Amino acid sequence: MNEIKLFCPATIANLSCGFDVLGLCLETIGDEMIIRKSSEKGIRITKIIGADLPMETEKNVAGVAALAFYQEASSREAFDYGFEIEIYKNIKTGSGIGSSSASAAGAVFGINELLGCPFTRKELVTFAMKGEVVASGSEHADNVAPCLLGGVTLVRGYNPLDVIRIDSPNELFAVVLHPHIEVKTADARAVLNPMIPLKNAITQWGNVGGLIAGLYTQDYELIGRSLEDVIVEPLRKKLIPGFDETKFDAMQNGALGAGISGAGPSIFALCKGHKTAEKVAFAMSESYQIIGIPFDMHLSKINPEGVKIN
Amino acid sequence: MNEIKLFCPATIANLSCGFDVLGLCLETIGDEMIIRKSSEKGIRITKIIGADLPMETEKNVAGVAALAFYQEASSREAFDYGFEIEIYKNIKTGSGIGSSSASAAGAVFGINELLGCPFTRKELVTFAMKGEVVASGSEHADNVAPCLLGGVTLVRGYNPLDVIRIDSPNELFAVVLHPHIEVKTADARAVLNPMIPLKNAITQWGNVGGLIAGLYTQDYELIGRSLEDVIVEPLRKKLIPGFDETKFDAMQNGALGAGISGAGPSIFALCKGHKTAEKVAFAMSESYQIIGIPFDMHLSKINPEGVKIN
Repeated sequence: MNEIKLFCPATIANLSCGFDVLGLCLETIGDEMIIRKSSEKGIRITKIIGADLPMETEKNVAGVAALAFYQEASSREAFDYGFEIEIYKNIKTGSGIGSSSASAAGAVFGINELLGCPFTRKELVTFAMKGEVVASGSEHADNVAPCLLGGVTLVRGYNPLDVIRIDSPNELFAVVLHPHIEVKTADARAVLNPMIPLKNAITQWGNVGGLIAGLYTQDYELIGRSLEDVIVEPLRKKLIPGFDETKFDAMQNGALGAGISGAGPSIFALCKGHKTAEKVAFAMSESYQIIGIPFDMHLSKINPEGVKIN
Repeated sequence: MNEIKLFCPATIANLSCGFDVLGLCLETIGDEMIIRKSSEKGIRITKIIGADLPMETEKNVAGVAALAFYQEASSREAFDYGFEIEIYKNIKTGSGIGSSSASAAGAVFGINELLGCPFTRKELVTFAMKGEVVASGSEHADNVAPCLLGGVTLVRGYNPLDVIRIDSPNELFAVVLHPHIEVKTADARAVLNPMIPLKNAITQWGNVGGLIAGLYTQDYELIGRSLEDVIVEPLRKKLIPGFDETKFDAMQNGALGAGISGAGPSIFALCKGHKTAEKVAFAMSESYQIIGIPFDMHLSKINPEGVKIN
């Protein structure tokens, strides 16, 4: 196998209560990538369609992640070829549904496949995280982990990296509304308080526990009750026009819960069943049309598989 | 049935990462209570053996919890009798393993049984919480919930009360060392900071998620990695002489994790298997003998059942 075509799914990080630790994988939206062996050593980005992103390997999230992986893999077992990467972006950059993570995860997954899978999907998370530094300035796994592993993922900790994959219930659907505004990562970080009340933290970790328990027991109501963020959402939602109204309409129409996807600006809702998800998507659209900012809508089952060969 | 004899188990609250939300139920240590119908209406504490506690109903945790329950139950269906409560304390007061909760939980459980179980065990938690006010000044459920429901419990939130019961793996054992010192609840609260770093809170809720996931998947290693408290333990351990050494020796001898039970002073360790638990108990004893403070040791399987008829 000298060439591989991939589907690299979008992801929702944080899931309200699980700031910086939880994420889930989507099924109906994602990038495509083609990775191929080349006689020239090293990593080259040869094509980017659908986004204005740097072609230089060292400045591109896919390139940086691929390089980190390439260096480690070739230090274990030498090989005299390199890899070319083509990226076909469907996930808009800056949308808050893991655009950079999809590229980083796809790059390392693809090269690993072409090398005969010397690393597990879980092991690939570390390399994909290196790509995230280019996009956000820090190594974090809350989007690359669900993109690589599928389902819902918990990043328990980083020293050492400890990622737990959790099956999500069959009837769990996500609706995502992406308003076409830019929320700079720096701004999304700047609104946060470095110190928080212990009281709120207790509420938050109660909800994280509830959400994990709800996922394992397929208790949709418990999942819904746990989708509450008393720490980050109250601050970040100010950066997203129409957030409160859209969330309200999602909840009124049967969503289990709703919140900010990653650092925003996308707004997500989780729903039980496709029918409810459609109703919620319609209500959120209606609601956002009044705001007057253009937007995209996505509706997706939770993707149990993660990045895959297409 | 006019009289009932109960076993009211001790409990470990917090479980390191789950401050104020997690708890588990013990099997080998607990109080006994006798509850009997009496022709006189109301609630009377008629005997307390093993502890110097107030006999006045309104000043006794069991009395207050029983009264709250009695008033609600009799408002739903009138009855022309009352209840007498005898308490045989084995759990030392102020030990940090749910002494007051055992009394509060036992009182409401016993009366509920004598009335033909109009309330579920989960519903009883609210009444037992009323008793906790007498002991600690606030309604909290992190000990009464595991005492009433058994296993591990998560108090997701209080508005309204949302308690989730989680099965614990079969081979999970707890070791508890109770140093005979007094840690006043006021002191245990006073050392806490009302504001905490967001960074530490993220670590903590990652661990809460990991612990819940570990319990559902019976992943003992994950349970162990998640038993970490970066917020409360570093402050409260100063109130417990020999904490660090005892925890160190527990871990060196194979404990999955160790920490402060409730507000202390008891130190707990969780272990996989009875053999390891015995080894850990021995090591903790050895360690504490050097400290020179008298102590009790308990070794127990996790109790899946909670308070029960004896």
